[in-house]
Amino acid sequence: MASKNLFLLAGDGIGPEAMAEVKKLIAAMNAKLGSGFATDEGLVGGSAYDAHGAAISDADMAKAVAADAVLFGAVGGPKWDKVPYEVRPEAGLLRLRKDMELFANLRPAICYPALAASSSLKRDVIEGLDILIVRELTGGVYFGEPKEIIDLGNGQKRGIDTQVYDTFEIERISGVAFELARTRKNHVTSMEKRNVMKSGVLWNEVITQTHKARYSDVKLDHMLADAGGMQLVRWPKQFDVIVTDNLFGDMLSDVAAMLTGSLGMLPSASLGAPDAKTGKRKALYEPVHGSAPDIAGQGIANPIAMIASFAMCLRYSFGMVAEADKLEGAIAAVLDDGLRTKDIMSEGMTEVGTTEMGDAIIAKF
Amino acid sequence: MASKNLFLLAGDGIGPEAMAEVKKLIAAMNAKLGSGFATDEGLVGGSAYDAHGAAISDADMAKAVAADAVLFGAVGGPKWDKVPYEVRPEAGLLRLRKDMELFANLRPAICYPALAASSSLKRDVIEGLDILIVRELTGGVYFGEPKEIIDLGNGQKRGIDTQVYDTFEIERISGVAFELARTRKNHVTSMEKRNVMKSGVLWNEVITQTHKARYSDVKLDHMLADAGGMQLVRWPKQFDVIVTDNLFGDMLSDVAAMLTGSLGMLPSASLGAPDAKTGKRKALYEPVHGSAPDIAGQGIANPIAMIASFAMCLRYSFGMVAEADKLEGAIAAVLDDGLRTKDIMSEGMTEVGTTEMGDAIIAKF
Ligand SMILES: CC(C)[C@H](C(=O)O)[C@@H](O)C(=O)O
Ligand SMILES: CC(C)[C@H](C(=O)O)[C@@H](O)C(=O)O
Repeated sequence: MASKNLFLLAGDGIGPEAMAEVKKLIAAMNAKLGSGFATDEGLVGGSAYDAHGAAISDADMAKAVAADAVLFGAVGGPKWDKVPYEVRPEAGLLRLRKDMELFANLRPAICYPALAASSSLKRDVIEGLDILIVRELTGGVYFGEPKEIIDLGNGQKRGIDTQVYDTFEIERISGVAFELARTRKNHVTSMEKRNVMKSGVLWNEVITQTHKARYSDVKLDHMLADAGGMQLVRWPKQFDVIVTDNLFGDMLSDVAAMLTGSLGMLPSASLGAPDAKTGKRKALYEPVHGSAPDIAGQGIANPIAMIASFAMCLRYSFGMVAEADKLEGAIAAVLDDGLRTKDIMSEGMTEVGTTEMGDAIIAKF
Repeated sequence: MASKNLFLLAGDGIGPEAMAEVKKLIAAMNAKLGSGFATDEGLVGGSAYDAHGAAISDADMAKAVAADAVLFGAVGGPKWDKVPYEVRPEAGLLRLRKDMELFANLRPAICYPALAASSSLKRDVIEGLDILIVRELTGGVYFGEPKEIIDLGNGQKRGIDTQVYDTFEIERISGVAFELARTRKNHVTSMEKRNVMKSGVLWNEVITQTHKARYSDVKLDHMLADAGGMQLVRWPKQFDVIVTDNLFGDMLSDVAAMLTGSLGMLPSASLGAPDAKTGKRKALYEPVHGSAPDIAGQGIANPIAMIASFAMCLRYSFGMVAEADKLEGAIAAVLDDGLRTKDIMSEGMTEVGTTEMGDAIIAKF
């Protein structure tokens, strides 16, 4: 029996193309290093809807929960823009997050030196940038009830969403942020809108208490989320770890990702709590970019974010730190060699397709 | 009796210093042009709390509601960080917005050519930038109920905020956005998170209907708010008018403001519905920057955002378009002359204080 079970959910659009490169990498690692990965595959998003009318089937959900780690591609596309809200492609991803209890979303925003020029920001503002956004992923306005549209009559409707956070949810996500800060520059910035939101008041209070009780060695700052968005644009290098709620995390991590100029390069990890017996965390790894339906099937998608997500999987799910470092090094090396997919192409570089980029990284690994 | 009643709420921190320059300007306009402004002054924010234990008194609220326009400085500071939530400085501003029914917040993000270099973004990305963010200001998660912290026992609390939007609220703010777009580049981008929020689904639906029924001559795009944040950083010039809800508007307008590199320069207007009889809108004008307690009282604050807010007041509350254009021209002219307050100082320019900057603008006016 294999010791490392991976469940692959390639999804829609460029998801399958990017995932194909990771599959080659896994095969190579099994063959050359005897890494012992076993893989199974399922459907999610629009392709799951087409196959069985739901954004993910119960059977695939069960496999995801049972796996050691899930690798996720991307979901969505114009084809499914009109499907009912409950079965829209994103619902598959949201169900995975909720049912696997993946409360901690780790989004590194790193500026690869070879790509600094492709950012819309000045080089000195982003060169060497290395931020980690720790986003709460199973609470807040994404899942709070009531969440509904009510018909008020008279042609009026009312749309309602509810932001809810309990103490324990804020405590556990701040624990993740403080622990990770200790492995980095030991600095956490917490962002909320305590001047407007009661959940922000509680957020601020709980993080402050957690800090005092267990992590007073880490530097902690508080920033209003709107000011945080500004500061990300003004001088992002002031940050090390940012911890924030689900919705602010969604916005702020996308802004941070775009700063680096290399959206097609950025991975993410979504982690659950350590299992009481085994200490293992449920985990899902996913590129930050979307399904990019406009370029799907053309063999030009950038597979790096997906491959970098697999590197995070090696690091966080299997403790294969040396291999993760090596894989991240291989990515940097092919960039230094001048290889570029279309999305990051610039003058004097060599444009390659999805499979060539994947092959080049595997060759350096 | 004066025909133009202005109520001045200078607030805290640098608010009074910035407001002093507008007071000089008003006096000059009355003396030279016979503009006929009458002013009265009140307290808001921390200074109101110190005076009478509330972030704004009922008497001052009544004056604000009765005035033709309110000029607002800034509120808040560390001195009031621990006051109860209900009377914190921001509560004064939020009450003004709610009680005056200022549902439409207009936030221009303009890059002054003379200041393009001070942005963290590359010059070609922001030179000539001219975006108008139209933010809904009296609804959404800012005011929805329940908004509370509940004690659950067992050391657990629950923080709750509620995002609520009714059809009519979305309709009226989109009307403002479409009307303004017609005076600009005729292009509106609506931003929400319909893939996660029911209020976003309704938002999208109502804007689409309003567009179809009354504004089909205007180009309308929809963008998810997280993608919108990204696109603001990537290529902001793709936008003309952005219309979005209260919380997304808070985040996105701050990001947009920071793109311009001149936060100390940006004004805003908050407008109510036209009065059924007189057609006049209640209005409050306010700089985008905060109270900057760290530099308050030093005479170095940049008064331009406050003065530019008064220019918006001339334009929107009094139809004094020629005077508004002239005042905005005077601001651009002093910048072209090389005058800079400390916050926007750069090599080869002439650093001036708050009053010198105000005097220079008045002299060019
Ligand atoms: C696809 C969508 C539901 C999702 C989110 O809003 O969380 C995405 O934007 C993300 O950030 O992972
Ligand atoms: C001061 C605060 C309540 C306010 C807000 O959140 O709306 C401010 O950030 C703004 O954007 O005007």
